[in-house]
Amino acid sequence: MWAKNALTKLLNIDVPIIQAGMAGGATTPELIAAVSNAGGLGTMGAGYMTPDQIRADIQAIRSISDRPFAVNLMVVEEVDGDPLEMEYMKSVFKGFEKELGEPLSFHNVNTKPQSFEDQLNVIIEEKVPVFSFTFGIPKSEHILKLKENGTVVVGTATTVEEALALEAAGVDAIVAQGSEAGGHRGTFGTLPEKGMIGTIALIPQMVDQVNVPVIASGGIMDGRGIAASLVLGASGVQMGTAFLTCDESGIDPHHKAAILAGKEDQTVVTRAFSGKSARGIENQFIRDMKAYERDILPYPVQNALTKPLRSLAKKEGNPEFMSLWAGQAASLSREGSADRLMKSLVEGVEKVLGTFK
Amino acid sequence: MWAKNALTKLLNIDVPIIQAGMAGGATTPELIAAVSNAGGLGTMGAGYMTPDQIRADIQAIRSISDRPFAVNLMVVEEVDGDPLEMEYMKSVFKGFEKELGEPLSFHNVNTKPQSFEDQLNVIIEEKVPVFSFTFGIPKSEHILKLKENGTVVVGTATTVEEALALEAAGVDAIVAQGSEAGGHRGTFGTLPEKGMIGTIALIPQMVDQVNVPVIASGGIMDGRGIAASLVLGASGVQMGTAFLTCDESGIDPHHKAAILAGKEDQTVVTRAFSGKSARGIENQFIRDMKAYERDILPYPVQNALTKPLRSLAKKEGNPEFMSLWAGQAASLSREGSADRLMKSLVEGVEKVLGTFK
Repeated sequence: MWAKNALTKLLNIDVPIIQAGMAGGATTPELIAAVSNAGGLGTMGAGYMTPDQIRADIQAIRSISDRPFAVNLMVVEEVDGDPLEMEYMKSVFKGFEKELGEPLSFHNVNTKPQSFEDQLNVIIEEKVPVFSFTFGIPKSEHILKLKENGTVVVGTATTVEEALALEAAGVDAIVAQGSEAGGHRGTFGTLPEKGMIGTIALIPQMVDQVNVPVIASGGIMDGRGIAASLVLGASGVQMGTAFLTCDESGIDPHHKAAILAGKEDQTVVTRAFSGKSARGIENQFIRDMKAYERDILPYPVQNALTKPLRSLAKKEGNPEFMSLWAGQAASLSREGSADRLMKSLVEGVEKVLGTFK
Repeated sequence: MWAKNALTKLLNIDVPIIQAGMAGGATTPELIAAVSNAGGLGTMGAGYMTPDQIRADIQAIRSISDRPFAVNLMVVEEVDGDPLEMEYMKSVFKGFEKELGEPLSFHNVNTKPQSFEDQLNVIIEEKVPVFSFTFGIPKSEHILKLKENGTVVVGTATTVEEALALEAAGVDAIVAQGSEAGGHRGTFGTLPEKGMIGTIALIPQMVDQVNVPVIASGGIMDGRGIAASLVLGASGVQMGTAFLTCDESGIDPHHKAAILAGKEDQTVVTRAFSGKSARGIENQFIRDMKAYERDILPYPVQNALTKPLRSLAKKEGNPEFMSLWAGQAASLSREGSADRLMKSLVEGVEKVLGTFK
């Protein structure tokens, strides 16, 4: 049976399908619980959430599911933005006010990220079943504490070298993020452009080098992609874009519509929204910001500065200034419940693998 | 049986494995014949060859194999290089003379590509079993003539839109070139950066839209990649890098050594060598030419201008100035005969698919 392997045993789930922990409001407790209740692993994208919000959502998930779930955090270092450079970037954004239809206010901008340590404490206190992370490697004391607490620890790698570093740090499994993936690149061990390896190339090279289970991600949307990942040597998959169009997803309706209408050649990797490379559907903001490529500030400063702009775009219903994160197989996305999606994924894998019996 | 499908029937081969038609001397008659004799389809990379050379190689193949084989050409338009821009590029290259150890001479530079029509005439006269092409779509009269002649016609697409255009033009099958692929990008219907879609995302989206068989390429090196491609909906695969390290391959020993020592994060896509985007192992020439990104001339002018430099690098045994074309899964490359590789590929597919029975 394809669904039973080291990964499903490790995570105590029925099918090796993980809903990615996408930060920014997509992963509602309802989405996470639906995926976990269907036998997969739902993940809270908690990177931008306060400790109190994380705790509240954990409790909300537990009120509707008794299945394992994961919380995902970003390993982020605080960066001081240069005041003059920040003022310049704000002036660039001010130039978009006409299209946004309202003046931009940067009054509430806070360039300090959520404290990773405070976020992690909630995960430890709540004894969350699975902790996953991206953008780096947490301190060894943190990994040790989580494991002592019975939490399964899952890292994210975009190269074999990053996977080896994660394995050495003691993670229980590794998400291999292929270049097709939507949203932020997890690259931390090399230049962002060097961590752009396609899933079909990355998986076999990684599984040949590490001993922990590898979870394929990037461009996987249906049973074909899952079956292909297993065939390549992955123990399971992590899927993001496919879950963004589910009924339970918390993304803006314009974002959902853009994914549903998306084509394979419409996404680009941009630093314009956050200061960190991320894949999304190209829109006016990404196009116009190409002229300011050298002025983009480091993450999380740039991310903090675009927040008022993104909020206004949401308020005004203008997708041209939203971060429309999506992977390279968006045209395979469908509407419906997460439960229906999970069922069709499982059926899809069985159908595809059955063809070659 | 996985090996029998519409593609193997169309091409009259035993297993749906095509050795890519890599231009520049890699595809010797011995390599092509070995692949075809092992039940796959060998392909002559004839893009840079004169009509006489193509004819001689066709006859050489036929002297050692009675199996089907393919000839691949590039659909290239003549471009006039601006004389001043060409002089500037030559002066840039002159700056590398110290490292190359010898003065560069541009005396024999010929920026005129081989005549596609003259090359094609040989293919028609010789009744070559399979004709494949890249960089565009030949005139409909040419496609018609080939098909009337009994030749199977195979195009190359990097997006779904390009695949639909090829299908409308009457091709019999389509190579889907994923972003992982080594060598030149076949993109012709959009900007080069838009045609960078990972194989795992590209294949299912393409097979859902076209009716002719789709051949997966990009990052496929062993039985796992082949099995994954079939699972994704492809009817077969085209592999380049894996065949470059075979005994019969005609590439420079330094190029072969670089691939055998290659890692997944060492390749980049560059226009520096030819004016057209191509993936290869990063070396000094690629790095140094980043400063002249805007000065790179269009294909095939840039390609003609780098020829003396590449020839000198070969003569001096300096891989830092060779075009070390390779895909993103180079670390899976092995030495040995093409026959041994073909056998291990077939065994690999059977082993992998057997695991999920």
